[in-house]
Amino acid sequence: MYTLIHNEKNTKARLGKVTTAHGEFDTPCFMPVGTQGTVKAVSPQELNELGAKIILSNAYHLFLRPGTETIKKAGGLHKFISWDKPILTDSGGYQIFSLALLRKIHQNGVEFQSHIDGMKHFLSPADVVQIQVDLGSDVIMPLDECVHYPCTKDHAEIAMKKTIDWAIQSKQAIRQRVNPLGYKQFLFGIVQGATYEDLRKDCAKQLVDLDFDGYSIGGVSVGEPRNLIYNIVDFVVDLLPENKPRYLMGIGHPEDILEGVQEGVDMFDCVIPTRYGRNGTAFTSEGKLTIRNAPYAQDFLPLDGECSCYCCKNFSRAYLRHLFNTEEILGLRLVSMHNIHFFLELMRKTREAIAVDKFVEFKKEFLNKYNLCA
Amino acid sequence: MYTLIHNEKNTKARLGKVTTAHGEFDTPCFMPVGTQGTVKAVSPQELNELGAKIILSNAYHLFLRPGTETIKKAGGLHKFISWDKPILTDSGGYQIFSLALLRKIHQNGVEFQSHIDGMKHFLSPADVVQIQVDLGSDVIMPLDECVHYPCTKDHAEIAMKKTIDWAIQSKQAIRQRVNPLGYKQFLFGIVQGATYEDLRKDCAKQLVDLDFDGYSIGGVSVGEPRNLIYNIVDFVVDLLPENKPRYLMGIGHPEDILEGVQEGVDMFDCVIPTRYGRNGTAFTSEGKLTIRNAPYAQDFLPLDGECSCYCCKNFSRAYLRHLFNTEEILGLRLVSMHNIHFFLELMRKTREAIAVDKFVEFKKEFLNKYNLCA
Repeated sequence: MYTLIHNEKNTKARLGKVTTAHGEFDTPCFMPVGTQGTVKAVSPQELNELGAKIILSNAYHLFLRPGTETIKKAGGLHKFISWDKPILTDSGGYQIFSLALLRKIHQNGVEFQSHIDGMKHFLSPADVVQIQVDLGSDVIMPLDECVHYPCTKDHAEIAMKKTIDWAIQSKQAIRQRVNPLGYKQFLFGIVQGATYEDLRKDCAKQLVDLDFDGYSIGGVSVGEPRNLIYNIVDFVVDLLPENKPRYLMGIGHPEDILEGVQEGVDMFDCVIPTRYGRNGTAFTSEGKLTIRNAPYAQDFLPLDGECSCYCCKNFSRAYLRHLFNTEEILGLRLVSMHNIHFFLELMRKTREAIAVDKFVEFKKEFLNKYNLCA
Repeated sequence: MYTLIHNEKNTKARLGKVTTAHGEFDTPCFMPVGTQGTVKAVSPQELNELGAKIILSNAYHLFLRPGTETIKKAGGLHKFISWDKPILTDSGGYQIFSLALLRKIHQNGVEFQSHIDGMKHFLSPADVVQIQVDLGSDVIMPLDECVHYPCTKDHAEIAMKKTIDWAIQSKQAIRQRVNPLGYKQFLFGIVQGATYEDLRKDCAKQLVDLDFDGYSIGGVSVGEPRNLIYNIVDFVVDLLPENKPRYLMGIGHPEDILEGVQEGVDMFDCVIPTRYGRNGTAFTSEGKLTIRNAPYAQDFLPLDGECSCYCCKNFSRAYLRHLFNTEEILGLRLVSMHNIHFFLELMRKTREAIAVDKFVEFKKEFLNKYNLCA
């Protein structure tokens, strides 16, 4: 699955390639998020043109709507949403804990009510794997228990141990799976343990012993201070095998991604390019830009003078501001696309810098400029 | 401006070409509506790919937001919205009567409050022309007074006479205009007179004597029975010169457009492809289809099996229904695009049929099939 191409000389950053049944992608990479089977406001054709090589979707959301059966009948998620490149699906464990009603965590799975219609459901770790098998995901995430910050050590330990148990059950499930689509699907292990070093280490070691196709660091960016995240990432990555991809879940802003890359992370996902895009905040080489602000009323420059995306090549800040003021859909479409382009370009430049052992210089230069308007 | 190419043998339908400073378009044509400087949910690139050759925008809306000065500074509307093909702007007379607050019609213009912020404005017919000159519109519509249905003959006559007075003032204004953009802009006359034949005839004759670049039929589809509209169109068209384009404002559904074509109309506009698209109603060769309906939950056919648009080539009814159920923007984007494609294809096939003197057959065949699901 993962081929290590180059270890950067001065940091833990590394260049690699992940190969799946739906094609390969270079790492470090950013995965645009299409929770409900669509990257919000953007078409698959546009994602292709923007250079996205893998997207993320969410098993919990798709299980509830339109339902696994519908997607199975459609011939799998790739066909249903018209995206023929790799798809990673999150299990939706996080959504069950944050969105679902009256959830109850049992030793053998999770009981909850749908946040949409209140219907009761029970899902075991094996069920969650089977859903993703049925969806046809290239990368499957197991059910895990994610805790909030702050969290007592006792609670964090119980959740971590349950995550390990569920990881074991998920592995068994994927071995026994019936995949009508017939291609190889990968299963990642998720390192939990809140902000406790020993719990994180314990979890990472046990997962590595179980031998997953890749490892993700979960339960981060749940309210803890930023330096704690990178402390965790730093020593967790050291425990992971070199020949497997590493995925830092739900991270993040450009400065966070660069920090993760430096610590040796390969894969990132985050909703912010599209969420910020829908609210009219653009990521630019000089920092974030809030397009509704009055100074842009007669500013005929593009969002980012250095950017080559469709939005920047064709439209001015003044026009985009007009579109947001008049609540026209084209506005949020254009800024969402621009933001995805910005994140994908950031990763492309990051990979270039790693290849020539100049990641530290690249990061410094990027952040210096980026913080101008921060 | 207008070149007559072919009069259909069996009807008043005709084939023509309109040439403007921003290129030419074949008639009969349909103009997608971009009221606020964007065809809702659709990008200019997509409009181009869909084959749109002219779009419509609205002087009243753009005058209020972002304001004429902003668009002037941007280098005109074409540049501001990144659309280099022809633009026809409606004066917004209809919007002043339907949207604006506390409007007061004076002999020399209209006083009203903005429907957005309550600001008071006064616009004379010359002001309305100058706004459109500043926007850089290829086809300018003069300020007119549109009455509702039903309307007393006295009231209709007063409004019609004011429309004539204002048409005269508009002609004077465009002669004296200062167009910094330097290219030829056309001014149409608008035939009013409600449902009264003699008023319509009187209005049409006076406008023709004044010699406009084209003629539109306004004040239709304001609540009157459908047959009354085509009665008016029928005899008004007979009074218009053969060498000028004829535009039936705000019409309409496919069956209405075909009726207008048969009476000799050249240009149409309507918000329904995009408005219906945003609500999840698709126009198909077999009639309208409401995508939220339950039977489409596991229907993996395209919206229209005969359609070659991006939506129909890539997505199923089941996926579109899912997108609408989950309120995902991609859903309304795709159905809006499909609908515009449907209308533009209808016009292309209409022109083909006229060219070979088979319009009646084409119309009959289309309506037979279209009404299957009506």
